[in-house]
Amino acid sequence: MQLSQIDERYRAPAPETGGYVFNQTMLRVKDPEVSVAFYRDVMGMQLVKAIPFEAFAFTLYFMGYIDGPEAYPATEGDRFVHAFGQPAMLELTHNWGTESQQGAVYHDGNAAPQGFGHIGFCVPDVDAACARFEGLGVEFVKRPGDGKMKGIAFIKDPDGYWIEILSSRDIAQVVASVG
Amino acid sequence: MQLSQIDERYRAPAPETGGYVFNQTMLRVKDPEVSVAFYRDVMGMQLVKAIPFEAFAFTLYFMGYIDGPEAYPATEGDRFVHAFGQPAMLELTHNWGTESQQGAVYHDGNAAPQGFGHIGFCVPDVDAACARFEGLGVEFVKRPGDGKMKGIAFIKDPDGYWIEILSSRDIAQVVASVG
Repeated sequence: MQLSQIDERYRAPAPETGGYVFNQTMLRVKDPEVSVAFYRDVMGMQLVKAIPFEAFAFTLYFMGYIDGPEAYPATEGDRFVHAFGQPAMLELTHNWGTESQQGAVYHDGNAAPQGFGHIGFCVPDVDAACARFEGLGVEFVKRPGDGKMKGIAFIKDPDGYWIEILSSRDIAQVVASVG
Repeated sequence: MQLSQIDERYRAPAPETGGYVFNQTMLRVKDPEVSVAFYRDVMGMQLVKAIPFEAFAFTLYFMGYIDGPEAYPATEGDRFVHAFGQPAMLELTHNWGTESQQGAVYHDGNAAPQGFGHIGFCVPDVDAACARFEGLGVEFVKRPGDGKMKGIAFIKDPDGYWIEILSSRDIAQVVASVG
């Protein structure tokens, strides 16, 4: 069934947009050593490219999921094409010097003024993932058993950005349960 | 070459994170009719699932790139699994009633207080894409020829969120040009 048969809003996009890829989501981070370690060791992403910009005094860290050794391009040029051509990269921006500031530097978007809300990760097993996060000392906004929407969790990254943890297998039931 | 041979920060993630997918980026939107039309007709995404939550007075609109008719699941349950299991979905949250407010409702993250910066799309040809955006009346933050970083552009979505437009083929040259 074509989704466009269900509702006008679902109709297919213009053919001129062929080849467009939703490549990146950019979040500013206070300390890249901490954030790169978090997204690698807790969330399982890999640092694909770190790009310093001397002229602007910032460095961009591109992280994503990479399947298999063949996805690790051997040349610098190929790593660029890979990082910027694939979907679902996380771009962490480090404005030099923020790491030595006291306390939180950035706004998570959920307190006022609101805007951006969260990034979200599908995992094979929400409870197993959250038990592992607990063991790693990750801060929770909402555990899977908390609140009305059982079965999904929200954790915080080192800057306080919210990360939803969900399972695609279970999400229909989660949604149905809150009506 | 393994990236982990280049730098400690590039080392492989823990095997316990196998199967994790960076599924979604959530942005609050003032008017979903306007935003769904923008991401569909301008950016070429498709609305995969619209999920109203009566109990919370909001609706979530999940949009993404869908390749081929076989990717349009026939059953409601399969559409859930698809929407929440694939990378690079955009989750637009509509808190009911915001569409009748005057002016901008949400904060783009680039004015103070900063945090989230932008989402970014790879396109086959930045100039061609931007010429099309101009014709569609899209607002620009930066045209490809503006500023020091030639060859990339930033446009605004209907809520003012920034969208980077880049080509993976050209990005290494863009970066090299600013040193």
